[in-house]
Order: sequence, then structure tokens, then C-alpha cells
Amino acid sequence: MTRKVAILGATGTVGQRFIQLLNGHPWFEVTVLAASERSAGKKYRDACNWRLESEMPEEIGEITVVNTDLKSVDAAGDVDLVFSALPGSLAGPIEEEFAAKYPVISKASAHRLDEDVPLLIPEVNPEHLDMIQIQRERRGWEGFISNDPNCSTIQLAISLKPLMEFGLRRVIVTTMQALSGAGYPGVASLDIIDNVIPYISKEEEKLEVETKKILGTFDGSKVKPAPIVLSASCNRVNVKDGHLEAVHVELEENPDVEEVKEAFRKFRGAPQKLKLPSAPEEPIIVREEVDRPQPRYDRDAGNGMSIVIGRVRRDPALTIKYLCLGHNTIRGAAGAGILSAELMVAKGII
Amino acid sequence: MTRKVAILGATGTVGQRFIQLLNGHPWFEVTVLAASERSAGKKYRDACNWRLESEMPEEIGEITVVNTDLKSVDAAGDVDLVFSALPGSLAGPIEEEFAAKYPVISKASAHRLDEDVPLLIPEVNPEHLDMIQIQRERRGWEGFISNDPNCSTIQLAISLKPLMEFGLRRVIVTTMQALSGAGYPGVASLDIIDNVIPYISKEEEKLEVETKKILGTFDGSKVKPAPIVLSASCNRVNVKDGHLEAVHVELEENPDVEEVKEAFRKFRGAPQKLKLPSAPEEPIIVREEVDRPQPRYDRDAGNGMSIVIGRVRRDPALTIKYLCLGHNTIRGAAGAGILSAELMVAKGII
Amino acid sequence: MTRKVAILGATGTVGQRFIQLLNGHPWFEVTVLAASERSAGKKYRDACNWRLESEMPEEIGEITVVNTDLKSVDAAGDVDLVFSALPGSLAGPIEEEFAAKYPVISKASAHRLDEDVPLLIPEVNPEHLDMIQIQRERRGWEGFISNDPNCSTIQLAISLKPLMEFGLRRVIVTTMQALSGAGYPGVASLDIIDNVIPYISKEEEKLEVETKKILGTFDGSKVKPAPIVLSASCNRVNVKDGHLEAVHVELEENPDVEEVKEAFRKFRGAPQKLKLPSAPEEPIIVREEVDRPQPRYDRDAGNGMSIVIGRVRRDPALTIKYLCLGHNTIRGAAGAGILSAELMVAKGII
Amino acid sequence: MTRKVAILGATGTVGQRFIQLLNGHPWFEVTVLAASERSAGKKYRDACNWRLESEMPEEIGEITVVNTDLKSVDAAGDVDLVFSALPGSLAGPIEEEFAAKYPVISKASAHRLDEDVPLLIPEVNPEHLDMIQIQRERRGWEGFISNDPNCSTIQLAISLKPLMEFGLRRVIVTTMQALSGAGYPGVASLDIIDNVIPYISKEEEKLEVETKKILGTFDGSKVKPAPIVLSASCNRVNVKDGHLEAVHVELEENPDVEEVKEAFRKFRGAPQKLKLPSAPEEPIIVREEVDRPQPRYDRDAGNGMSIVIGRVRRDPALTIKYLCLGHNTIRGAAGAGILSAELMVAKGII
Repeated sequence: MTRKVAILGATGTVGQRFIQLLNGHPWFEVTVLAASERSAGKKYRDACNWRLESEMPEEIGEITVVNTDLKSVDAAGDVDLVFSALPGSLAGPIEEEFAAKYPVISKASAHRLDEDVPLLIPEVNPEHLDMIQIQRERRGWEGFISNDPNCSTIQLAISLKPLMEFGLRRVIVTTMQALSGAGYPGVASLDIIDNVIPYISKEEEKLEVETKKILGTFDGSKVKPAPIVLSASCNRVNVKDGHLEAVHVELEENPDVEEVKEAFRKFRGAPQKLKLPSAPEEPIIVREEVDRPQPRYDRDAGNGMSIVIGRVRRDPALTIKYLCLGHNTIRGAAGAGILSAELMVAKGII
Repeated sequence: MTRKVAILGATGTVGQRFIQLLNGHPWFEVTVLAASERSAGKKYRDACNWRLESEMPEEIGEITVVNTDLKSVDAAGDVDLVFSALPGSLAGPIEEEFAAKYPVISKASAHRLDEDVPLLIPEVNPEHLDMIQIQRERRGWEGFISNDPNCSTIQLAISLKPLMEFGLRRVIVTTMQALSGAGYPGVASLDIIDNVIPYISKEEEKLEVETKKILGTFDGSKVKPAPIVLSASCNRVNVKDGHLEAVHVELEENPDVEEVKEAFRKFRGAPQKLKLPSAPEEPIIVREEVDRPQPRYDRDAGNGMSIVIGRVRRDPALTIKYLCLGHNTIRGAAGAGILSAELMVAKGII
Repeated sequence: MTRKVAILGATGTVGQRFIQLLNGHPWFEVTVLAASERSAGKKYRDACNWRLESEMPEEIGEITVVNTDLKSVDAAGDVDLVFSALPGSLAGPIEEEFAAKYPVISKASAHRLDEDVPLLIPEVNPEHLDMIQIQRERRGWEGFISNDPNCSTIQLAISLKPLMEFGLRRVIVTTMQALSGAGYPGVASLDIIDNVIPYISKEEEKLEVETKKILGTFDGSKVKPAPIVLSASCNRVNVKDGHLEAVHVELEENPDVEEVKEAFRKFRGAPQKLKLPSAPEEPIIVREEVDRPQPRYDRDAGNGMSIVIGRVRRDPALTIKYLCLGHNTIRGAAGAGILSAELMVAKGII
Repeated sequence: MTRKVAILGATGTVGQRFIQLLNGHPWFEVTVLAASERSAGKKYRDACNWRLESEMPEEIGEITVVNTDLKSVDAAGDVDLVFSALPGSLAGPIEEEFAAKYPVISKASAHRLDEDVPLLIPEVNPEHLDMIQIQRERRGWEGFISNDPNCSTIQLAISLKPLMEFGLRRVIVTTMQALSGAGYPGVASLDIIDNVIPYISKEEEKLEVETKKILGTFDGSKVKPAPIVLSASCNRVNVKDGHLEAVHVELEENPDVEEVKEAFRKFRGAPQKLKLPSAPEEPIIVREEVDRPQPRYDRDAGNGMSIVIGRVRRDPALTIKYLCLGHNTIRGAAGAGILSAELMVAKGII
């Protein structure tokens, strides 16, 4: 049975990725596109400054965009679930409005730290989906909100999950993040040519806090954050797509480099077991070259859904260090939402 | 009295910076330019693919390049000291040949870890110059070798020096290094467009080892390395000049952010006290903006001789984190050598 | 006698260049800074997102920005002349308001083609300044408007002027224009990374029309456009500053390449004869290398006020072809305005 | 019947494209890889610095590279035809050696202007293949040489072919060419960051001469060059793949813009009629947006085999101007060779 999908924030860069990735999807069909008043009433083709190299799907271009409110979306067509790619500043109340009726899978930051909202990475913490029942009861909603983490958090958390078995204690991460993470128009070209910007608003806080919730334990009523400390230093570099992260970890045990690589390589999660349509065969690909991963060469691994790890080596100051790369608008955004939705379908939640 | 200077490796990017920075220098005059056989016998103008935005000094262009051996240099003119910008793989024996007769101030890595060779940053460890006497006696040389550290090490070590008073214990640093650090032609454009390369050969080892020697204690006979541990993760980014480093430090004491900034700001060294010609007024400039330092805006601070630090903040996993930027071919290379030479002149060593 | 200067549009990229270039100017002193309502009332330091590598002059940062209307500017301090760096869409009526009282030297496009407004390049058509008297009489103004041409036009027109002696007939030019020409934030980084944008709104029309007026003959009452045809193809490339133009010209005569180079080299104009403070010694520098001019290496020639020409060669389809480069925000904008003002001072118009 | 293919110069950037494009090809199978002595004897995986974003085909990586001489290639396996991606400076005698025995389809410049060698673009001048018979007879070869034009020439010539019906007389073209056109390592990153290089060795001559041969008339014995004049100005810009060309043409007739677009759109050639495997459905795609074609968005049109034309407009100085974009290593190199080979198979020449 095909589920009908509405996309909120459909004209932005993440909204565009949703449309691209849902094109031809076996389970989901895009029926409603919602965006700001400026776009409402226009054909998507005319409302959207399409910024992907692949062409906009013909029939999507013909859809008339509606305003981002429940009434307009309801009037526009049948909807079984809602993907939200809204700006964080707007998402809060709008997503609640929609969640009263529909499952809302959100990329926005507004509800990520809500006590009863799962911050889901299907390979990492599928058991957090049990929070949805609590959420519905507490809030009296027919639908619900499930959140995807921040882009730079998702790839870090996936890489940390297999390290939990070694007693993960401390994480120090420096990110080199891609331009597309800032949306469009986003970073001005004059700011980034021949330059690095060592600051992304609220990004370090997100990495430091979200990761603990994702790796935390759900005890049936709430999530107990993972007992780890994280410190992040976030930078914007002149790269189109693909966040690169230099990660240093302290572990209780002292595994050697090969054991760590093996843990990365053998890692599989619910999406792989359930063979979800968007699940990469390998959630983590480990490369042996001295100079990989690199954004341009590795961001599309597993159709942009695999994390690529390289340069796993001893850390003289902590235990292990490595590089970790993920496609920020696929695995870090639209692809994450779609994989989450697929998991919910497979689990009968949607 | 003007000292006459020979430059070894004069046609490379660091050699060119030496020429640019020595143009009009009050104490030094370039008289001999040496390079590989391929260049020997040609006018510098014809031998050199000048890669700096400022024009090559007219009279330098007229100098005939000689081969990089003692005999050729001797024959080419009077020399009081030698700057070596040789490739690390060639520098070892050649610098020894020259040191038998001349003071050699070297940017090459060959002798950096030699027990009797100072690894000098004039603001940080001027007392290590006392090793020269030991070196001369042991090796029977009229001249000597003094070494400048690796570019990424210099700026890091300057930033760490004021933190020693707080009991520096652990340093984790991720670098985002400029293209000019790889020389010319260096990094292929196809490798770096829309990309980051998370690997620079031997760079992490240099950072981890050199820093301990620089910050170590000279007891009159040898250097006892500083009791700190360092871990580095080195990356090449699409920036022309200026290495940016994300630094996380663990300190024994627990100074607040303002105390740390104050320590950075008030830091002065021998070059400032001696008012050396190339000494920046402030070795460390602390910026308060949320998004500085940035390579393009901050690399030329203090004529490229100041280190610019920003975003000093608490580190949830260690003690303090900050960003640190330096001009890699000025403070990190040619400017470092010239400042070292100036210190030696001021101390009567040259 | 120092003239007091107001800058309209002071917070934009061209406004910033005016401030930078007027810092320490022997004849002009910035006293009033005007910008949009959003900035009015703030210190310039707080109102402006300073995007130049050199630091903002201390005392300028302390000036309180006023709104861009005559009353506010009048109230803010003494003013002898006004530089306008307003957006073209706003400049029309505002500049007229100011011109009733002050000399207005404008970078905006609004009045460029007005019959009684000089479109001035001091080296090229200083005699067009005689239009000012006509303008004042006709419009009943105490002040006046004098216009600088579009950035890409200025450098082209300077290069064409010496070719007039050979009977210039036809010009085909393809531009590769810098990011700073689009202002700030201007071109989105996602649009230009690994890309060229073959379109700049209205740029081709400006090149094709303005050039004819500039090179035209002023008969004492109006300008008769030069009898040439131009065709332009304008592109935006990933370069910070410096427009590069590939120019193909058809001449009535058939000068050889050396004669053309000689005409470029010997070209001097009123600013050189009058030794105006901002006049470059050579308005046109001819380079002989096979691969120059290049934006990064040549844009700062003559402090950004010289045009650099290279690769002068036979054109198999027309007569001669060459490359021409100019600094678009110096010679093409703020520097152009300042040189114009200097010429007016020297001629007693201001 | 599958033809077995040897690739000369297999480790370079064009060689890599051949391998990528021939992977899974219905008619051709790569059996022999030849490269310089430095690579000979190594597995391709070890000999090649693979610079494409897609992964190297597994089985190709296992092939042992042989030296680029007939004997070594003969010994390495069965070969039905040879693709040459040799450097122009080496290709001359080597290709002749191979042509004595095999069909050689060459990307190298050595034989392009030979009187009896077709300079083939399958859509443009398939009748030039008749030169092969003459060549074989004259040279006494079992095989032959057929040449692909220079990358920037191919896309220009395809765009000019439909304009021949309007009486093409004069062409002025300025190119903005991609980095991959210079091979690997090719352009140094320090040369192109924040820069344009207005010179590519011999490129303008190739454009000006090759185009006339391609569009020329084969009279059964030799090619009479097309009676047109061309003038080119060639530049290297900071783009990975995709050459962009600003083209100005003078036509005898005076078609309006829509007629010209229609001529572009309806253009089809032999590959389309024969439905060759690599033939794009539309050799020329015309875009209506004001700002297309752009390299990053349009280079992969028709799997990199379509030319994308945009901004067709009146030329005030000639007749018509437009922009033209092609993928330089697909349509401009490896894809061109493969399409040529497919045409020869369809025509029974191979």
C-alpha cells in the first residue's frame, strides 16, 4: 500500500532532496507540497529555485504549492504522513498542529529535545520509537512527532554506536561542514572563497547534546542520556555536500585499531535486518587508504546513506581517532527522514 | 652592519617568501641564491616560477642562481648566514656541509629532532639557543644549524606557551591547512575543488613530537620534552594561505575563559622585548567575534607574524577550546626563519 | 583645503571600498555616512558587515550612520560632496534630491544615460565634464550629478580609448566577472562552487550602451555616441575581485601587434597630467607573459587603478584580440568615483 | 559480437573515463590496458591514481598493465580495436605502429590534421569516414587511425553544424574550460584558487583550425576546409568538468532567434538515426532559462553526451550569440571516441 506524503518546507534545499529521493519510492508518493505564503498558489516548478543537479521530476513540477497550515494541506489531497523540512524557528507550533492528526517526521530542531519525542536514527536507537505511544497519550494526538537529529550529529552518532561496546567515555570532534548544510542562499560566496568559517550557529551545542540523547537508554518512560561527554568545534568549508568530521574518542577498554575497524564494519541495524528500501547495505564503510574519506569521492557511498570512516588509528591523547564522512542532505537530512518513515511502516506505526 | 644572506632552495614557495620578506630588511641583504641543478646558471627571474602576488624585486631577478653546494655558494659572493628552504629529503647532508662554515637557519625537517639542534620559536624558547655552543663543540663546526619547526607546529606552540602556567597536560588539535603549505605545484586543483583531503604526510607526527621539544626544558646539556600529550588530525582545505587549528586543551588548573584570554593577550617574548625588526607587536591577537579567526581575514595580522586566536570557550570534555590561525608561509616558514636570525643577531650569535 | 564627504550606501561593498580608499586621502575627509533605515542610528561599526581584508578605520567605526535623505545628511555634519554607492533601484530620486544642493558622484546606474549627465572616466572623456554646466542650468541645481560607468564598462572603455586612433569599428567582448561585483551577500556559494554563471542581469546592455556614450563626442550641447558596435557576453566566475575580459576588436586600419601594444603603453590621460592623488602612473599596463593578466596576480596593479592588458595578438576573424583586467571595486567602482572627484577638484568644479 | 578493446594511456584521466564508460558496454569489452613503463607490470588498481567519483570496476583493477608498444599489447590478449588516450607528444609514432594492425581511435592531437585521417564527430561529418579507405591504401595498413577532435572543438563544431544552413561565415568564441581538461595532476590548485588563467597552450589554434576541417567537405579524395573564419580566446576556470563557450557568429542569412533555436533542437545525426548505444537522444539541448547552461548543472545532460545551448540571442555586432556547454571528458574525449567506434561498427568498418 502506497502512503501519501506531504512535505512541509518543500521549496528549500532539504525539501528538494525529499522530492528527489522520494521520486519512484516503492512505499511513498508525494501528493502535497507546502511552503511559505510567498510560494503558495504557484506551481512547484515556479515556486522553487531547484538547486539539485538532477532534473526536477516532471509531475512534481506541476503540483500547486499550498500554505503550510493544516487546513490548506488537508484541502490539497490525501495525506498519510508528513515530512517537515521547516526552518527551526517556525517548526515548533506548526508541527504540533500537524501532529494532532498526522505522523510528522521532522528534520527541524524545534522538538528534538522534547522528553517524549524520539530523536531517531533507525540503525542506532529504533527502540526509542516506543516513546511515540507515550507522546500520543500525553498530548492526546492522533498523529505524533518523530525527529531526525542534526546532520552533523547523525553521522557522528552512527560512528559512535559500535564503540559503545568498548565503553565510550569521551568524544572530541572537529567538523568541516559543507555549504549545503546552510540551506539556500545560505553561505555567501564572498565569505567562503579562499576561506574557512570556524563557526556555525548552535551547531556545537546540538552535537554535544543530541548525541547523548540518541545514544541514551529508553527505560520505558523516558530516555536516560548516555554517560559520555562530548566537545565539538564546528567549521564551514568550501565543499558542496558532505560533512567531514575528525573524531577523537576515549574508551574504557583498549581495543586495537583492527578491533575498532571490525566493530565499524560489522555494524548493522534494524534497517539492514528489515531490508528497508533506503537502507544502505553497509551503514558504515571503512576505507583503508591513507587519505580517505574525502567529501567529493565518498559522500555518495550507499546512495548517500552510508557513513564512510577512514584513518582509524591510535590516539596518543585519548584512545582512538578517525575521520567520518556523511552526505549531509541525504543521510543527514532527507534520507534520514525517509529511512525513519520506512522503519515506522515496517513496525506498523504508520 | 648588514649581514649577507644566502638562500638555499630559493626558487620554491618558501624561498620566494624569504626573498619577499628580506626585501628592504634593515639587517640582512640577499646576495646568493642557490637551487637545484635545473636552475643553476640561470637568472633568478628565469629560473623561478614566482607565485606571490607582489612583484619579484627587480635586482633579485638579476642574480644568477648557483647550485646548492658549499663551493658554488662560496664562489658566488660573501655570505654571513644561510637560510635553508630545502626539501626535507635533501636537506640533511647539505645543511651539515654548510653548517661547517656558516650559521644555517633551516626550515627543513631533517635536523629538527637532533639532540643538539635548537627547534626555535623566538617568543617561546629563546633559551634553547644555548644548544648551539654544545652543537659546535660536539660537531667541530664554525657555523651551526638552528631549526624552525613545522608550520602547523609553530602557531600551535605559540598558543600553548601562555597556557603552560595553568599546567598544560593534554592537547587535541585538528588542523585545516592551506594549499601553499604543500609547495608548488603541490596540491592538484582536481584534488581539492569541492573537497577536503584529510591527510598530510607526516604532519600529525610532526605536531605531536616537535611541540614537546619546543615547550621542553633545556637543562644546559639537553632538552627535556614537556610532559604533555598531543594528538593531531591534519586536513588540507581549499584555502591559499593560513592554517586554521581547532585546539582542545586539558589544564591542571581550571582558569576561566577570561583568564585564558588574558594570558594570550599579555603574552610577549624576546622578540618583542628586543624590538626585533620582524617581531609583531602582539605575538597573539585575541578576537572576540563569534566567527573569527578566518584565514582570508586574519592571516596577514601583524604582517603575517601574529597568531590570531578566537572563540576561546569552555571545553565540556577537557578544559578549554579555541581556534588558532597563522600565516603558514610567513610566521610558519620564511618569517619564522628571519625572526630567528634577528634574535641571533641581537644575542651576538651571528 | 580638505573637502568633507558624505557617502550614500556606506554599508555596502562599494561603500566600504570608498571608506577604505578615502582613509588618509589628502583632499577628502569622510564626515557623514548614510545608509538604509535599518542601519540609521547605529555606529558604523555595528551597522556594517565589513567585508574587506584590511581593518575598518577606527574613527570611521565610531561615526553614527544616518538615513539616506538630504535632511538627515545635512543634520549630520558639513558636506562638500557626496559619493553615491546606492543600489540602482533606489538611486534615481535620492540622487536628484542631493544634487539640488551638492555635487553627487554616483556609482549607481540610475542616471548614467541621462542626456545631461557625464558618464565619466577621467582618463577617457574629461571634456564631458562640461555637461555639468548645462545640467545645472537646465535643472536649476546648486549641485549636480556626475556618473561613473558600470565596472565592466570602465576597464573596457579605457582599453578601447587608445584604439580609437586606428578607427575602432566593432567590439566583441566576453567577461569573466568577480563575485564582489554582485555585492554582499550577492552570489550564493552553492551557485558558484564548481560552476560558472553565464548571466548577469542587464550587464551586457550596460556594456553595449555605456561604452558608446563614454567614447562619444561632446559637441558643447550633447554627446554624440561613438560610431561603433559592441556585443557582450557576461559571465560570473569563482573569483573574489578582478574582472577579466576577452576582447576582440575590428579596426579600420591594420596596425600590427606591436603598434597596438605601444598605443596601450603610451596612453596617458588628464589624471596623469594633473598628477591626481589616485591616478595610477600607467593607466594601462601591458604584460608580455603568455598567460597574463590573471585576476589574483594583476588586480592590485597601480593600487587597483591600472588596467592590465595581455595577450595582444592578431584576430583571424576581426583585427586584434587581447585580454583586459581591472579591479572591479577599485577602478571599477569606489576608486573610479574618487578619481572623478579629484579631477573635478583640479578643474575647480568642486 | 563483442569487440575486444585495448586502451593506450589507460591510467590518465581520459583513460579512466574510457574505462568508466566502457563498463557494461554492449559492444565493447576492455581486455588490454597499456600505459608508460612506470605502470607496466602493475595491476591497474596499483598503477592508477583513480580520479573519478564512481568506483573503479573491480575486474578492471585486476588487469595487469602492459607497456605501450604493439608487441606488449599483442602478447596481453586479443584486441579488435584500440582507443588511444596518449599524450599528444608521444602519440605520433606509437599510433602509427598500432594502426598498421588495428583500428586506432585516437584522442591525441598528433594526427588530427593529417590529410588522410578523419577528424570525426559522428553527428557532424560521418562521411569523412571514407577517408579511411584512402588512408589504408596509401599507408599500406591493415588498421587505420581515426581522430577525435580537441574537447573544446567538439562541442563548438556540433553547435555550428546546424548553423551551416544559414550560411556560417565568422565565429568568435571565448572558452571557460574545466580543470579536468588539463589532465592530472594538471592545474596546480595555487594557480586557480580565486583566479582565472587566460591561456591554454595551443588551444586557440586547435579551435581555429580543427573546426574548419570538421565542417569541411570531403570530395572523395580530400577535405576542403569550410570557408569560415574563427577566432578563439581560451581560458581555464575553477570548474571540475564541463567547458562553457560564449559563441558569437556571423551568418549570411538573418534568421531570427526562434529559427536558430529550432535548428539546434531539430538537429540529429547518424548516431541518432542508427540508435548507437552511446548516442544521446538529443545531440543539442536548448535551454530557455536566462542563466543556463551552467557547468555543474548541465554537464551530465544526455549522460554527458549532449551539448547544452542557452541564451540564444541577437548579436549587435555579428548575427547571433549563444552559450554552449559540453562535458569535456565525456563528449569531449572518451565518450567521443566510443561513439566514433560505435559508428564504425554500425558501418562495418570495424
